[in-house]
Amino acid sequence: MSTEAPEKITLPPLRFSRKRKWAADQAIGFLMEQSVGNSDVISLAAGLVDQESLPVEETRNALNELLSDDRFARQMLQYGTTAGYEKLRDQLLVHLANLEGCSVEQLQIDRDQIIVTTGSQQFLSLVGEVLLDPGDICLVAAPTYFVFLSLLDGLGAKAIAIETDADGMRTDALEAQLQRLETDGQLERVKLIYAVSYYENPSGISLSEERRPELVEIARRWSKRNRILVLEDAAYRELQYDGPQHPSVWGFDDEHESVILTQTFSKSYSPGLRVGFGVVPRELVDPIFDRKSNEDFGSANFNQHLISSVMDSGLYESHVEIVRNSYRKKRDRMLRAADQYFSHLDGVNWVHPHGGLYVWMSLPETIETGFSSRLFQVATHEERVMYVPGELFYADDFFRQRNQLRLSFGVQTLEGIDEGMKRLANAVASIL
Amino acid sequence: MSTEAPEKITLPPLRFSRKRKWAADQAIGFLMEQSVGNSDVISLAAGLVDQESLPVEETRNALNELLSDDRFARQMLQYGTTAGYEKLRDQLLVHLANLEGCSVEQLQIDRDQIIVTTGSQQFLSLVGEVLLDPGDICLVAAPTYFVFLSLLDGLGAKAIAIETDADGMRTDALEAQLQRLETDGQLERVKLIYAVSYYENPSGISLSEERRPELVEIARRWSKRNRILVLEDAAYRELQYDGPQHPSVWGFDDEHESVILTQTFSKSYSPGLRVGFGVVPRELVDPIFDRKSNEDFGSANFNQHLISSVMDSGLYESHVEIVRNSYRKKRDRMLRAADQYFSHLDGVNWVHPHGGLYVWMSLPETIETGFSSRLFQVATHEERVMYVPGELFYADDFFRQRNQLRLSFGVQTLEGIDEGMKRLANAVASIL
Repeated sequence: MSTEAPEKITLPPLRFSRKRKWAADQAIGFLMEQSVGNSDVISLAAGLVDQESLPVEETRNALNELLSDDRFARQMLQYGTTAGYEKLRDQLLVHLANLEGCSVEQLQIDRDQIIVTTGSQQFLSLVGEVLLDPGDICLVAAPTYFVFLSLLDGLGAKAIAIETDADGMRTDALEAQLQRLETDGQLERVKLIYAVSYYENPSGISLSEERRPELVEIARRWSKRNRILVLEDAAYRELQYDGPQHPSVWGFDDEHESVILTQTFSKSYSPGLRVGFGVVPRELVDPIFDRKSNEDFGSANFNQHLISSVMDSGLYESHVEIVRNSYRKKRDRMLRAADQYFSHLDGVNWVHPHGGLYVWMSLPETIETGFSSRLFQVATHEERVMYVPGELFYADDFFRQRNQLRLSFGVQTLEGIDEGMKRLANAVASIL
Repeated sequence: MSTEAPEKITLPPLRFSRKRKWAADQAIGFLMEQSVGNSDVISLAAGLVDQESLPVEETRNALNELLSDDRFARQMLQYGTTAGYEKLRDQLLVHLANLEGCSVEQLQIDRDQIIVTTGSQQFLSLVGEVLLDPGDICLVAAPTYFVFLSLLDGLGAKAIAIETDADGMRTDALEAQLQRLETDGQLERVKLIYAVSYYENPSGISLSEERRPELVEIARRWSKRNRILVLEDAAYRELQYDGPQHPSVWGFDDEHESVILTQTFSKSYSPGLRVGFGVVPRELVDPIFDRKSNEDFGSANFNQHLISSVMDSGLYESHVEIVRNSYRKKRDRMLRAADQYFSHLDGVNWVHPHGGLYVWMSLPETIETGFSSRLFQVATHEERVMYVPGELFYADDFFRQRNQLRLSFGVQTLEGIDEGMKRLANAVASIL
């Protein structure tokens, strides 16, 4: 052995884990990088939130108060617990009860069943880690949130798309698929039904009120030798602009043993704080806790105290109202621009969402929208407007359509939305 | 299908993932919960940091300035990028160059090789995820950081302990172990050598200067068909109170293809912000990025801007000096208390650490210290003092000793340290 500088030798390549190979080349990173650079491109792609209605004043006030008390300030700056700040978790019970329109007691869960995470994304990831082995199956809407599809890929799990209509995932199609899987001897591999229940990203569609209890009933009835759970992603729940106010799917699970619910403060308050949470059946508490211990032993305590404070003071509720009003205007502007610039184009149609951040548009079947399509090239390089290709949102080829676009009205100004839609229409028209 | 309330049926149990079973029952969660409750117990167990020197004033000043500029405040509250705030990553290059005693150019890496994470714990977890398959091997010191051992358990990876002395992991023992593994046909399963290079948690020992280049040289030379990487955990690097100032192991890896380095602001500034970072060989950039995209697509942007600001203003450097002075006094007090209360007890000895947060104590071989030992019961229930049993820090039984304790001087006041040590000595004396 010597202490000389190591010789220059060519080292063998790194050998990565199997799951590294499954996780390669995710589109989210590509898209997020795109949305940060390229300042002269109008991005209707970025899932960022409205810049102007971010809670600067609210955060300033809350922090001024929090940090003026030395003892409290130190508590925020110290480590927290793995599951999250206890007071915040108690507040989340109240928050959830308000959204469900019931009392905290009627929720029939306790604080321990709530875990605070680095955005709802980390919660989704934790659920996947503790439940899914390679080859396990998760049933999803077609289309659905593509980052969750990436996450399933990264676990080696299999996503199977279920036909979806204007009322969300079709429960009859779900039932038929479960029947098919049982016939094929695959039912035991089914662990999860993933449902973005409010204003789905990308389609803007909500699961109808009628289908919500059906989803729970189906999950329970098909739990034959193995429990099937519904993973309800309610990230956009509070961004409602009009239309019916649905109870959660979770609320129909009387025993709280079949539905996992996740929500986030990223859309309703601030994504820069990365505070989300999940509500789990009792049996999942320890598994999620242990996994989170290994991953980071707790999300930022500072941020959890901040969210707790804005909830306490009422600043949160008033801010959500501001955010809703801002997005409602943006949605209206995008729909108006769609009418103005696209209605003369044959075979172009789009969903009118009651909430969320997206307008889902379909072009004539012959027009592809993918990253390598002519439309994408013309849109980004000539017209200087960006969208997310719809094909990314399909779990498999069976339902995948290649002629759709997700258009976000979250981050652009009203003028930006209008200009972006005009540019996009030009791009589409030039291809037609 | 019906929309009636689901019938009351007994559902089959949840079937968890394989890795859930590996991750069950982690001690960190147990310990963190213990340290939060039980206010009349003096905890020499908690890895929390000193409450009094937390940067209240610094954080207040930084946030006042940051949030007074609306445009900047909005930037903090918006989503960031997956790899972390670009400006902060540039500052981390400068920070690292300062610690290494060289220029940024001499580091010979660029910003893309730095990724910001939710504490260094998340970085360790990401590295494990992208590199380790079940059955893969990681070589570790005996004793070493037990949360990392839990993390390896959770991945189904195998930790093999290497004999360790007052200069850290023995490089001759490491070499001998690699030879043994090659003979057994197991060399290809070796992916990592984990080294807590400064003031190891729990032993307080640093890897000697002589052994640092040797570690790199061994990792390179034994990379035969498969690259072996050194994972250098420098969490306590900046908490130096006296003794020699070592360059990092990473600094001896001229090609930057064999050593991964991680550091954190949890110990030197605030754990409540959860900002850590890692420096990786170029080939690891995409794998870590993709994995982080799936886990949370970026740590809290707000917190990264805050750290960036305190680094910019010089508040960080001055705060680290305050922290060092505070901990130096605490270490001295703990060592003095050890002399005072333990030196008359036969067969009790301890390490004098030059930095970090821990004093590592050994009792006579007959005295067990584990959770179910008589000492632990007497200490926690009668004397009201808590420590972490040393046996938790051993990867396997080969080197495991059952008569050691990790004593933290981080969180207690000087009086608390003194009183805790006195109580602990009473507990030990009553067992002897």
